[in-house]
Amino acid sequence: MSQLSQTITRPVLKIQTGQSAWEDDEIVTEYPLTIFLNDEEFATIVCTPSDLEDMVIGFLAAEGAIRSYSDVKQVTIDEGQGFAYVDTHQQTILSQSFYSKRRITSCCGKSRQSFYFFSDARTAKPAEDGVTVTPEQCLQLMNTLQASSDIHRQTGGVHNAALCSPDQVLLQYSDIGRHNALDKIYGYCLRNDIGTADKILTFSGRISSEVLLKAAKIGASIILSKSAPTELALQLAEELNITAIGFIRQDKMNVYTNPQRVILS
Amino acid sequence: MSQLSQTITRPVLKIQTGQSAWEDDEIVTEYPLTIFLNDEEFATIVCTPSDLEDMVIGFLAAEGAIRSYSDVKQVTIDEGQGFAYVDTHQQTILSQSFYSKRRITSCCGKSRQSFYFFSDARTAKPAEDGVTVTPEQCLQLMNTLQASSDIHRQTGGVHNAALCSPDQVLLQYSDIGRHNALDKIYGYCLRNDIGTADKILTFSGRISSEVLLKAAKIGASIILSKSAPTELALQLAEELNITAIGFIRQDKMNVYTNPQRVILS
Repeated sequence: MSQLSQTITRPVLKIQTGQSAWEDDEIVTEYPLTIFLNDEEFATIVCTPSDLEDMVIGFLAAEGAIRSYSDVKQVTIDEGQGFAYVDTHQQTILSQSFYSKRRITSCCGKSRQSFYFFSDARTAKPAEDGVTVTPEQCLQLMNTLQASSDIHRQTGGVHNAALCSPDQVLLQYSDIGRHNALDKIYGYCLRNDIGTADKILTFSGRISSEVLLKAAKIGASIILSKSAPTELALQLAEELNITAIGFIRQDKMNVYTNPQRVILS
Repeated sequence: MSQLSQTITRPVLKIQTGQSAWEDDEIVTEYPLTIFLNDEEFATIVCTPSDLEDMVIGFLAAEGAIRSYSDVKQVTIDEGQGFAYVDTHQQTILSQSFYSKRRITSCCGKSRQSFYFFSDARTAKPAEDGVTVTPEQCLQLMNTLQASSDIHRQTGGVHNAALCSPDQVLLQYSDIGRHNALDKIYGYCLRNDIGTADKILTFSGRISSEVLLKAAKIGASIILSKSAPTELALQLAEELNITAIGFIRQDKMNVYTNPQRVILS
């Protein structure tokens, strides 16, 4: 039985129509698990820490690395380190060149405290101070994002992301992939030399660690979401000096990190 | 300006409280784009086909493959083939060993008609016939999935997936990653030798091509979702003989593919 917690409790600044109060809230955890197949690093999966052995076996089968459970000799999970070691009866089911193509993400994976992919450490920088936002502006930006999302209204199938000043939406993209919508914003800013340090990202989806890192790479200091954050994303938001605000719905929102950028009336 | 369409129209069997009718509906497209960086295959991104140049530049910057837009010499996009060619001024910003680690997914990428990742062609098999379902059973399974998703209720941050018979939920997993919840089901079935050909997958999230392929690998012949499918997922569902049913909410649902498995009263 896993000793890892699927949620943790942390204080959140809850704001609703002019009222605000710190309250404890449950936040879902994200757990990076690096899989070693016959002592070779195979992939790192970011997951909810439950049923890890089922997940590892299912993942390896889906990737074609094992054909059935009888291919598996041994599975050992080091929960503290976040490592899964899988040995198969046949040493080489797939060639090494195939392995390297199937690595989804590859991370240093040594420490739970500062989880960064190798390239993230090079490209994600702590956000600058300066920009502030009011709860009313947060609600307004989220409403604008929702109202102008045509593809989403038609088909219900895409994520929406916008680069904003406190007062208005400047750029908006839709994509079936949450990362793609953010990459489109980043690419536009790079190609057109648009500064992002004083900007706000407004996003329709959940604030996962990868979304938070992408926001940091883009250079935004505030991220607004209609949905929930994960605990790992909030740890990164604290390290990277980003204000994460989630569950922006109707007249409510939760400020999770760096509340100094939120101006309460 | 891109000539690619972000949505397509296709006939859908719409069911609501005993009534059913075929109606045209808009479905969001998924477009695989393979990026070549200085003539080396770098990554394949599945995306909404708009603003491809922004996305490619943003992705390469986020991955650390370029540091600024001035690193880029030329970007050429072959929309028909789904290829993006990026040349940088310095030939080798990252070493080849680093590249191979950063490949998110690597697909044959030759044809829009049958889009499979290399390992998918080996592991995804057409579903068997046999199992059928009524609209009432679909609603019941989705309600059960929703009602028993404790983590989701607490935190709003996870996807839920269940393996079901037409009459009941057999296994249920929650995970912040949609693929992980499905991998956990697959791993459990493999480890416990549970047949899946007569089973139904019930899923809280969107039916993307990757989710559909995972369902095919697991071996389920019917997939139920509260959310929308993508066009690429529906093409794959047709090829793989899977019944895809989406937007299961209150007393409604849409049957997108292989409606012969749905028994209307």
